[in-house]
Amino acid sequence: MSATMPADHRERPGRIMSSEMAEQPAVLRRILERGAPRIREVAAAIAERAPRFVLLAARGTSDNAALYAKYLLEIRLGLPCGLTSMSTTTAYGARPDLRDVLVVTVSQSGGSPDLVASAQAARAAGAITLAVTNNPDSPLAAVCEFHVDVLAGPEQALPATKTYTASLLSLYLLVEGLRGDAGAAAHMLPDLAAEVLARQEEVRQLASRYRFAERMVITSRGYGYPTAKEAALKLMETSYIPALSYSGADLLHGPLAMVDNISPVIAVVTDGQGGKALQPVLDRLRGRGADLVVVGPAPQVAAASAGFTLPTAGVPEELQPVLEILPLQLLAYEVTIARGQDPDAPRALAKVTETH
Amino acid sequence: MSATMPADHRERPGRIMSSEMAEQPAVLRRILERGAPRIREVAAAIAERAPRFVLLAARGTSDNAALYAKYLLEIRLGLPCGLTSMSTTTAYGARPDLRDVLVVTVSQSGGSPDLVASAQAARAAGAITLAVTNNPDSPLAAVCEFHVDVLAGPEQALPATKTYTASLLSLYLLVEGLRGDAGAAAHMLPDLAAEVLARQEEVRQLASRYRFAERMVITSRGYGYPTAKEAALKLMETSYIPALSYSGADLLHGPLAMVDNISPVIAVVTDGQGGKALQPVLDRLRGRGADLVVVGPAPQVAAASAGFTLPTAGVPEELQPVLEILPLQLLAYEVTIARGQDPDAPRALAKVTETH
Repeated sequence: MSATMPADHRERPGRIMSSEMAEQPAVLRRILERGAPRIREVAAAIAERAPRFVLLAARGTSDNAALYAKYLLEIRLGLPCGLTSMSTTTAYGARPDLRDVLVVTVSQSGGSPDLVASAQAARAAGAITLAVTNNPDSPLAAVCEFHVDVLAGPEQALPATKTYTASLLSLYLLVEGLRGDAGAAAHMLPDLAAEVLARQEEVRQLASRYRFAERMVITSRGYGYPTAKEAALKLMETSYIPALSYSGADLLHGPLAMVDNISPVIAVVTDGQGGKALQPVLDRLRGRGADLVVVGPAPQVAAASAGFTLPTAGVPEELQPVLEILPLQLLAYEVTIARGQDPDAPRALAKVTETH
Repeated sequence: MSATMPADHRERPGRIMSSEMAEQPAVLRRILERGAPRIREVAAAIAERAPRFVLLAARGTSDNAALYAKYLLEIRLGLPCGLTSMSTTTAYGARPDLRDVLVVTVSQSGGSPDLVASAQAARAAGAITLAVTNNPDSPLAAVCEFHVDVLAGPEQALPATKTYTASLLSLYLLVEGLRGDAGAAAHMLPDLAAEVLARQEEVRQLASRYRFAERMVITSRGYGYPTAKEAALKLMETSYIPALSYSGADLLHGPLAMVDNISPVIAVVTDGQGGKALQPVLDRLRGRGADLVVVGPAPQVAAASAGFTLPTAGVPEELQPVLEILPLQLLAYEVTIARGQDPDAPRALAKVTETH
């Protein structure tokens, strides 16, 4: 934002979130150009240690990035993974045997005391420790053996956007590096991201249907599931609409009772196995007359109540999450504006959350 | 229910859920008396194989029981754990190396095809496999090397209640068995459970405050977190109120923006480290003027807007989840009745959910 901009524009609600969302193509390009060599080095050093199990530790938006990494590690690398229950270490003093375990801690700020304490405990317990942060000078980066900088630049908005996609791409390159691959397919992302972000007007139209929504359900399966969780978090942080996210399979195991014509559903449909596995859930939702908005490939959007068509042709399924979240970030922003609130000023949130 | 009961009583809404909730003290006693020796044998055989990591696979209510086991395994046994993302196997065909890994699959029916397929794949990949089910003749029990029967008896109600507490106690005895311990402290549970369930009138009074609630937030930390998740699931399945569950730490990392005087909060406060770690969250919620109902020890209930005092004196923190969920099951039931719905007839749910 330039200082010569008229005051009323500088004060526009959501201008910080808006400008950070718009930076994402440039951030992705920066990671591919400047970050990738370092990520490959870190990956090679970790691969040499041959970890047998991976634990991922994170909170909030970073936890959704960690979940994406879990899918990559299990599917592409065949490593069993777990997401850390932080309190086992920080509240209960558990000291599991972590030899042969890679512990990846993802944190935008690298400053949350419980993440630092849990990484420190993991290292003391014999783990290979890696910090993935947007701050190379953070306490978290200091206590871990390895560090990957996601190079998103300072993030001012309380709802994290560019650090999310930056973490996804960095984690993708890391996992490809662990496999000894350069992850060349990722080079298509910056242009596609710019293309998606340029379609904000389409999202604004979608947003109008949620202006008076009292709750939302967001579902997906496989690689798209972290996107569903992150979209729900964005919507709640900005618009305060209770947005419930479920894997399609879990939705059928209970919460479906809650879905009817007053609970609109957003389905994140990846173009690949995850989308195929979601199909019975989509059919069931349509059978119940649910208001179903799809973010995904054109045929899926055409079969829904409405949607946002993603350019997925030629994009490997495991990279689609980097694009899928973009219209949903825009949606959180637009719904919040439509409801007369300011996406830059969520109540009660601090940028570095000090949980212990 | 006797066949001589008057017809109007037989048709009372929620009678199936009600009678299954009431069976819980007897089920817990049955596990301690008849199930424990077999669980100890299974635990001893698994301990001999010295697993280094544990993966837990489950869906819905059983997934919350699996999360409880994760806390036990990490804290009491020092084994790193993960919850399985089932689609990595069933949709993407991932075949991770599972030597030295114990894979525990928890399922009431033992019949969901994706759980059977994922347990089968785990066994083929070298894992030690254990099924924890309420049906020894189920396909899941057949494909796993080991089986624990949770002995809850046939469960007819769609919202699972007695199979949840039966799974918790069975998993507790299993983990104690892996440590070479008999878990004698659990013997206090049947009487305490009966005592809690006898206080249904107190819960009925609490339920009145949620009669018109449009959403609810349920929070906890540590051992109480699976209780928060299970309570949210029960409320959604029966009353259709969107109930969001968060670990206290995650609540501070975002969704707190959504909590205000129109989002009532239920906090599950364990008497122990988890409750202590939740204290800053409780203080913050009180500072925001949230309507806060506490399920936990007396002083915590006294400091809240209202609550249900649990008999926690002398009950080890790791056993409290078996009691904590009881007033919350009753609450889901009573809120649903108060809203004029039938807890036995949730829309759209089938008892054996066939996800693939």
